[in-house]
Amino acid sequence: MKNLTSELLKKIKENSPLVHNITNFVVMNYTANILLAMGASPVMSHSIKEVEEMSSMAGAVVLNIGTLQDDWVDSMICAAKAANKMKIPVILDPVGSGATRLRTESVKRIMAETKISVLRGNVSEIFSLSSSAAKTRGVDSSLEMSEEIIASAMELSEEKNCIIAISGATDYITDGKKVFCIDNGHPIMTKVTGTGCGLSSTIAAFCAVAEGKILEATASAFGFYGVCAEMAAEISEKPGGFSVAFVDSLYSAGKDDLDARLRIRNSF
Amino acid sequence: MKNLTSELLKKIKENSPLVHNITNFVVMNYTANILLAMGASPVMSHSIKEVEEMSSMAGAVVLNIGTLQDDWVDSMICAAKAANKMKIPVILDPVGSGATRLRTESVKRIMAETKISVLRGNVSEIFSLSSSAAKTRGVDSSLEMSEEIIASAMELSEEKNCIIAISGATDYITDGKKVFCIDNGHPIMTKVTGTGCGLSSTIAAFCAVAEGKILEATASAFGFYGVCAEMAAEISEKPGGFSVAFVDSLYSAGKDDLDARLRIRNSF
Amino acid sequence: MKNLTSELLKKIKENSPLVHNITNFVVMNYTANILLAMGASPVMSHSIKEVEEMSSMAGAVVLNIGTLQDDWVDSMICAAKAANKMKIPVILDPVGSGATRLRTESVKRIMAETKISVLRGNVSEIFSLSSSAAKTRGVDSSLEMSEEIIASAMELSEEKNCIIAISGATDYITDGKKVFCIDNGHPIMTKVTGTGCGLSSTIAAFCAVAEGKILEATASAFGFYGVCAEMAAEISEKPGGFSVAFVDSLYSAGKDDLDARLRIRNSF
Repeated sequence: MKNLTSELLKKIKENSPLVHNITNFVVMNYTANILLAMGASPVMSHSIKEVEEMSSMAGAVVLNIGTLQDDWVDSMICAAKAANKMKIPVILDPVGSGATRLRTESVKRIMAETKISVLRGNVSEIFSLSSSAAKTRGVDSSLEMSEEIIASAMELSEEKNCIIAISGATDYITDGKKVFCIDNGHPIMTKVTGTGCGLSSTIAAFCAVAEGKILEATASAFGFYGVCAEMAAEISEKPGGFSVAFVDSLYSAGKDDLDARLRIRNSF
Repeated sequence: MKNLTSELLKKIKENSPLVHNITNFVVMNYTANILLAMGASPVMSHSIKEVEEMSSMAGAVVLNIGTLQDDWVDSMICAAKAANKMKIPVILDPVGSGATRLRTESVKRIMAETKISVLRGNVSEIFSLSSSAAKTRGVDSSLEMSEEIIASAMELSEEKNCIIAISGATDYITDGKKVFCIDNGHPIMTKVTGTGCGLSSTIAAFCAVAEGKILEATASAFGFYGVCAEMAAEISEKPGGFSVAFVDSLYSAGKDDLDARLRIRNSF
Repeated sequence: MKNLTSELLKKIKENSPLVHNITNFVVMNYTANILLAMGASPVMSHSIKEVEEMSSMAGAVVLNIGTLQDDWVDSMICAAKAANKMKIPVILDPVGSGATRLRTESVKRIMAETKISVLRGNVSEIFSLSSSAAKTRGVDSSLEMSEEIIASAMELSEEKNCIIAISGATDYITDGKKVFCIDNGHPIMTKVTGTGCGLSSTIAAFCAVAEGKILEATASAFGFYGVCAEMAAEISEKPGGFSVAFVDSLYSAGKDDLDARLRIRNSF
């Protein structure tokens, strides 16, 4: 996976894939800076009058349901359908799913009407979609990670026919058959808003240049993102300084950093 | 007040109270980072379809009328009513009240239809609500602080039946009977957008763990926030560097810093 | 031009002109901080119910079509008409014009129904308005700069009856007769979202204090902005650190910096 991750990062820098984000107001700026730093071309656009055009020319599409409004769900579905038609990967970030009916039902509607490539969230968000047992509080993760949860993620992946990617101290990515476990990252990320949302857009950038290897590209994105967080935490372990250093490491991290730091395990 | 401030800060870090913000587009990201840094759990949500649910599970609710749209006022009132029903504190930040009819009238409507716990703004914004004499220019404060203004704030507090909190070189917080004066803070704060809005959300975090001591919690929030600004200004007195250092000091400031720096006076 | 640029900057700091921005969600925070740093007073407001009032009291108005929604175009036209009536300069930033029909047509509608003082964009955005040949990909510039393009900009300026300002490695500003070329700036700016949008608002601040010298004020704004970028790049050439240092240099840059670094050429 180390070689693949470096190769995909190189391709992002060479090809500057356009990543079309329909995302929440809180993270639009940070997400754009994260994508620019690694070499991708972000565009934010949500009007039903242009999302089809925009998605059709993108390398990947991100749907993120934080700060949701009704009409945005229609735009998300319109963008995803346009992407589906052209086999462009679609990443869905179910921010706060489980916390309110609006969020849970919007995610379910999007997943019913379109083909999602990767669903990425924390364990509470992901499990709000598979059972009524888990309820999120805000957008924070609360459930403990366990083998049982991994098994459930594999089941959910088969049920929803998409890759399930769960963020946490260890990240889990599965297509229902294979599981990648990633041990990169740093706890200070939980004190900076939008680090999860930025990861979803990073997955999109990696998928945009992966020629269909969506599972591996998703695991690579998690690994790259976590490595950059570790590098930034060596500059500052406080959230303000970390946040700035993180953008810098997304910009400067290269093959040597990935070779030295990536901790991606197979678990199957 | 030093002990109380430290105790409330400790409770924020232990309990991570959920603060539900219906706030303006300019400051959503910075506000979320401010709340995360001190240990609270921010959520931003404005859809009429979920604000009732969201507010009902929050420790405090913030209404902020910058970048106002019509339908947001309905959402604010819906959220505040849900909070009122459950005795959850509601903080109102009347950004730019007095500058346009829409803003002044929206604040008046919110205050007529719901119970606000704390109204926080600069002197122009606050006085746009008590008389037609003061008109704000943008969101900047222009009137000079004076004893006369304090007296008016006390009157306004009784009239509106809420705590009035006025930001300035010296801050004034009153419930109509007692007045707290806070001398913490730094002038560079006026050169960073959203420092006022972030203070309103900080008040919410303190009120969320104050078990009804809303006046004291509000004064504590002002003191804590001002102390963190002073610490940050020792790192950088330029707005970019200050802004980053401020988030860092909100994260790291503790009892020792508060004991050494808090300048909260009673004035009654 | 060095003296004029310093004089205008001094007037911004003395008079704190109110700059009314109807701009996109991605850059609202950064734009506000950019304007505050240099000494201007930013306000963001887009509701049709208050833009007329807000624009009427502003020193300049900025219209920026990133993250466009339908009803915002009506607000932009309403704000611009109010500004036109009072001879207040209006700056239009056609973000992503050429990339989608919605964006191109919205810009054309705004320009047909109101008087724009300065149209600022990259070469792709600007030329999407003069011919169907150029199509932008996202908001990135792709065409090469050339004498031919300058000639076209002069033509477009006459056709649209406004100043055309094109950002690039060298910037070109023309009123159809004179052309200013500015060589200040730094490539890392392209890796930070909102640097172009922030420039449009900086032009607004300079025009607000220029007493009608809009062409010279626009060239001054480009020069000042580019000088600040160069100063910031000496602190950090990575996008996170640069972004913070840029705000700091917008705050601290003065006459000496401008005298030493400004590179504004006449070309007519």
